Amino acid sequence: MAVQATEDQLVAARAARAAYRAGFAEPTSGVAVGLTQANLISVPADWAFETLLFAQRNAKPCPVLEVIEQGEVESRLAPGSDIRTDIGRYRIWRDGGLAEEVTDASAAWAEHPDLVSFLIGCSFTFESGLMQAGISIRHQELGRNVPMYRTSVQCAPAGRLSGEMVVSMRPIPAGRVADAVQISGRTPAVHGAPVHIGDPSSLGIVDLSRPDFGDAPEVRAGEVPVFWACGVTPQAAIMASKPPFAVTHAPGYMFITDVPDAEYVL
Amino acid sequence: MAVQATEDQLVAARAARAAYRAGFAEPTSGVAVGLTQANLISVPADWAFETLLFAQRNAKPCPVLEVIEQGEVESRLAPGSDIRTDIGRYRIWRDGGLAEEVTDASAAWAEHPDLVSFLIGCSFTFESGLMQAGISIRHQELGRNVPMYRTSVQCAPAGRLSGEMVVSMRPIPAGRVADAVQISGRTPAVHGAPVHIGDPSSLGIVDLSRPDFGDAPEVRAGEVPVFWACGVTPQAAIMASKPPFAVTHAPGYMFITDVPDAEYVL
Repeated sequence: MAVQATEDQLVAARAARAAYRAGFAEPTSGVAVGLTQANLISVPADWAFETLLFAQRNAKPCPVLEVIEQGEVESRLAPGSDIRTDIGRYRIWRDGGLAEEVTDASAAWAEHPDLVSFLIGCSFTFESGLMQAGISIRHQELGRNVPMYRTSVQCAPAGRLSGEMVVSMRPIPAGRVADAVQISGRTPAVHGAPVHIGDPSSLGIVDLSRPDFGDAPEVRAGEVPVFWACGVTPQAAIMASKPPFAVTHAPGYMFITDVPDAEYVL
Repeated sequence: MAVQATEDQLVAARAARAAYRAGFAEPTSGVAVGLTQANLISVPADWAFETLLFAQRNAKPCPVLEVIEQGEVESRLAPGSDIRTDIGRYRIWRDGGLAEEVTDASAAWAEHPDLVSFLIGCSFTFESGLMQAGISIRHQELGRNVPMYRTSVQCAPAGRLSGEMVVSMRPIPAGRVADAVQISGRTPAVHGAPVHIGDPSSLGIVDLSRPDFGDAPEVRAGEVPVFWACGVTPQAAIMASKPPFAVTHAPGYMFITDVPDAEYVL
């Protein structure tokens, strides 16, 4: 498909990227609504093949929307963008440990000019579809970040890269769970259908109220916890696999593209 | 999904791979029906990232089912297999030119032990779905190979790799074209919906009766030519981009896996 963004959407996306470039940072849920947001992982060129292979082998948590090659910093999904500056908040990783969070990652590219960047699909894309079908998204209602959990499910390794799958969770009324499966299943290029429904313990999640990333959930009577593969999975692989250097977005602070969510709906 | 192959299917697949390993060669259309067949492209490790990136950027013609890493020769999609011997007929490419066709590619791996192999989805997978819906597949009726065409549509380049998209063509009765779109659209991981319907000239195809690969088609009154992205596209990229060495299957002589086609249907 080649769905066109509206002029209003493009103005909102450009304004957001310009603000983040100028140093402003905010969680991007609800920003430039209807346009696709993406997770970022940037690694030295020597790790690029393994990262792309890890994504290919774990396509549900790691759907690659774009690869920005060594020496390039503009995303084709957002003409005029600069991947070093246009995300609100970045994480800098050294030897698998979180070294710092910054609002401008130019110094990382100056230190490692050979970084290759991967833009990975984000669950915000199918959340639009759920809301259009009248399935409300609790963390958005509450103005919180989506809860995300490391699981006991191991991803398929690729060379030096391995790690467990990270999932995001949304509480869904029991009578709408099947609808949520079918609606998100229509975006197979962006996480697709849930990986697990209703039993946190079989994913190795001990306490649903304490997510590893994002904010605590609120599951109400009559609701079932539904788990989707999450684009933060590459960050778990960095923690487990310890590449010497990596840059990612901070969870919830996504890269905003000019591409409508509808582009990824079958 | 995790669809299980039947014992009969697995016996047929193993027998076919064993026969090809012993030197026998045949076009694989109709062999081990219901199991997924794959295109092969193997390149030296130095070209692996660009090949995987080319596939990621051109996912409709190049859907990657598996990557067999440097030093490995067994496909996880077919336990016990050997990618050097278990295809009926291979093509050996040097500097972008077809150097020879062989029934055993062991010498290629002896010459280049660092080959990385990519198994790419094949349109046979959605042909099963079309036939189940009563849409007959002309080239199968006639016992011929599917007609394939180089087009004027350029693939998105990746580093040193570029080339035009190759399409396969099936004549479909005008009243079933929409069904063919919807059925093949349910296998987005294996070429998905057609890229073009009804006008060969807008793809730069001058003479439909003279395909670049495979056998001449027979388009009857009331039928429309329908074009799908084709897994032979990487071979066109080899011709255009001239890597020093590559191995592929010969068109029509596919790698037979143990994975049911249904695994790739949404």
